[in-house]
Amino acid sequence: MGEDREWAAVTAALAEAGAWLYARGLVPATSGNFSARLADGGLAITVSGRHKGRLGPRDFLRWHPDGRCEGEGRPSAEFGLHRMLYARDPAIGCVLHPHSPAATVLSRHVTGPLVLAGYELLKAFPGIATHATRLLVPVLDNDQDIERLAGAAAAALDGAGPCWAFLIRGHGYYTWGRDAAEALRHVEALEFLFECELRSAALAHR
Amino acid sequence: MGEDREWAAVTAALAEAGAWLYARGLVPATSGNFSARLADGGLAITVSGRHKGRLGPRDFLRWHPDGRCEGEGRPSAEFGLHRMLYARDPAIGCVLHPHSPAATVLSRHVTGPLVLAGYELLKAFPGIATHATRLLVPVLDNDQDIERLAGAAAAALDGAGPCWAFLIRGHGYYTWGRDAAEALRHVEALEFLFECELRSAALAHR
Amino acid sequence: MGEDREWAAVTAALAEAGAWLYARGLVPATSGNFSARLADGGLAITVSGRHKGRLGPRDFLRWHPDGRCEGEGRPSAEFGLHRMLYARDPAIGCVLHPHSPAATVLSRHVTGPLVLAGYELLKAFPGIATHATRLLVPVLDNDQDIERLAGAAAAALDGAGPCWAFLIRGHGYYTWGRDAAEALRHVEALEFLFECELRSAALAHR
Amino acid sequence: MGEDREWAAVTAALAEAGAWLYARGLVPATSGNFSARLADGGLAITVSGRHKGRLGPRDFLRWHPDGRCEGEGRPSAEFGLHRMLYARDPAIGCVLHPHSPAATVLSRHVTGPLVLAGYELLKAFPGIATHATRLLVPVLDNDQDIERLAGAAAAALDGAGPCWAFLIRGHGYYTWGRDAAEALRHVEALEFLFECELRSAALAHR
Repeated sequence: MGEDREWAAVTAALAEAGAWLYARGLVPATSGNFSARLADGGLAITVSGRHKGRLGPRDFLRWHPDGRCEGEGRPSAEFGLHRMLYARDPAIGCVLHPHSPAATVLSRHVTGPLVLAGYELLKAFPGIATHATRLLVPVLDNDQDIERLAGAAAAALDGAGPCWAFLIRGHGYYTWGRDAAEALRHVEALEFLFECELRSAALAHR
Repeated sequence: MGEDREWAAVTAALAEAGAWLYARGLVPATSGNFSARLADGGLAITVSGRHKGRLGPRDFLRWHPDGRCEGEGRPSAEFGLHRMLYARDPAIGCVLHPHSPAATVLSRHVTGPLVLAGYELLKAFPGIATHATRLLVPVLDNDQDIERLAGAAAAALDGAGPCWAFLIRGHGYYTWGRDAAEALRHVEALEFLFECELRSAALAHR
Repeated sequence: MGEDREWAAVTAALAEAGAWLYARGLVPATSGNFSARLADGGLAITVSGRHKGRLGPRDFLRWHPDGRCEGEGRPSAEFGLHRMLYARDPAIGCVLHPHSPAATVLSRHVTGPLVLAGYELLKAFPGIATHATRLLVPVLDNDQDIERLAGAAAAALDGAGPCWAFLIRGHGYYTWGRDAAEALRHVEALEFLFECELRSAALAHR
Repeated sequence: MGEDREWAAVTAALAEAGAWLYARGLVPATSGNFSARLADGGLAITVSGRHKGRLGPRDFLRWHPDGRCEGEGRPSAEFGLHRMLYARDPAIGCVLHPHSPAATVLSRHVTGPLVLAGYELLKAFPGIATHATRLLVPVLDNDQDIERLAGAAAAALDGAGPCWAFLIRGHGYYTWGRDAAEALRHVEALEFLFECELRSAALAHR
């Protein structure tokens, strides 16, 4: 696939993911950001401040491995978190950062990591073959210093074992996959599990 | 109706049911599975791992009464539960297995079967003519050994009296009907009742 | 307007109301029923057991003031409640009976009538000009004997002052208006208020 | 832009905002009202009692700075609140007043102003660059005397520091922006934050 066709396909997949997320209230008020890896090692990343439910060709920047950024506008402020994830794991092809009330409330409610255990839907994540699994979702304190936040996230991921997402307190979460379709499937699974955890917490201690 | 036309009609009805369920968040992240009985005693069953909201002709397998499976891919892992239901009751023409946060949370919250009583909507199930009814929904512990799980489900159904669904803990539920339309009506009724039970539980003991 | 055109217009308005209600989950699993008054004192009423989200011309019966019922099928089982409302108040032109989880849970939670007070949205009901109003919504015990239930509803309405709805425990509610548009506006207001009451109840006593 | 074209563009933007809000249940039962500032210092304001999800050209009035009101019908009863906001701050180009169950329940639950703190989504509001912010949303007691309510709102805003919304108890909220798009973005952010606060409150003290 030529470089131009690759770019068109990759950004179209991210735009479609954005429309899906927006329709479900997961990227309100221009929040959230998305990226995908290109064949040359570069990245496509959303421009900061754009409406994530109707992304067009001019709402993405092309980041080159030499650090140049092609396109108009600044990349999303949290681009450093995306780059950290791609650098850690060559199998990651797409990173999505949605917000949702359930994720946000849980991230402020739990102490320590969120532990997802006993759910059949855990099998939506690669390498998980039984509900009798404990999946840890690290929860990081929010930080406007993105390099510092990326460092904390990397450290949390190092200690978490197989991991498919992390929460940032009061902020939303990051999840990823080999492409946009897989990353979106992880969003679907996580939103389901977050909703289960939050509704369960409203029943606890009775 | 010729065998080919029957196949086309049956799989189209299941695909339509899948689209309906997906739009309501009941089969997230490729979860869930659906089947229907054919005139020759065979079954149509969804292929494992497919997106349940946009099922096409190649997303179904034809299981023959002699045990052969026609089509590409493996049947959904839980096909044994479907076969158990068809074998128990010749009136069943369609089996649906959705997931929902409400069903999943309830299945982890209750001890013993879920008891649905006093709801007018119980009359949505065949043979129920008054709200003054106690409908039991057995809750099974989840098990990745599907034959064992099917055996436990059959035993629970044997002891439950008239029954239109069972829950699997942390997993979702099974419901059925003479065709896809009736099975879907049972999903609608169950989701309503699960939501009522869960919202009531968030009010309890005050 | 000729009798045929009146019939077409009235049933089309009820079908549109049904589609609106179904899309919001308020008439699940063929539940609910709708009616409208005709110029000759007759009524249009939904046929029992039909899908309330896609009503066509054959899903309505024409009831004549002399007691004859024209059309195929039986009227909704609760037609007696509709007739009671039309007989009590000549200003009523349309009666809607939706179900919703919020209404159903509240109807099982409250003791005595539901009291709606202090909400600006109370002004959606005719004759209410300030939030500083107490609107009573009587709650009746469910009863499969519809004539007895209609008698209990009439007695509750007699004692309730200006009233725009009543709940039946575990069942749903009735509301009305001079036409389908006004009755539907009352559904919108009631669903909003029921949701407010139920979410408030989940916060109470903390 | 000619005066007529300005009017068409401004009212079309408000109608589009109304359709968006209605689809999300934020202006039920003809509640809510919207306005925008015109180049000559006049205002476009919704006519009282109209369906806010399908506003057409005749559902707006043109208010002139000399106090004349052009068009059919009365302006929304709360027009005085809109005028107060435009008079206080020349940067405001659009005012939206939605209702939502979450906002309404919170407005009855909190004592004192609602304090939104620690949320990344606070950065959706102009001038906020970090989650480590406390945004106050004043809560006013409801009052059918709109001039008195407008006076109370102005006093609350004077004391609140940078402020992008106020709640009226049991009633809904007001938010604003330089144009309809910005005001709508504030609605999105507020609904997200209200939902987070309300779901958190259902978990508190366990």
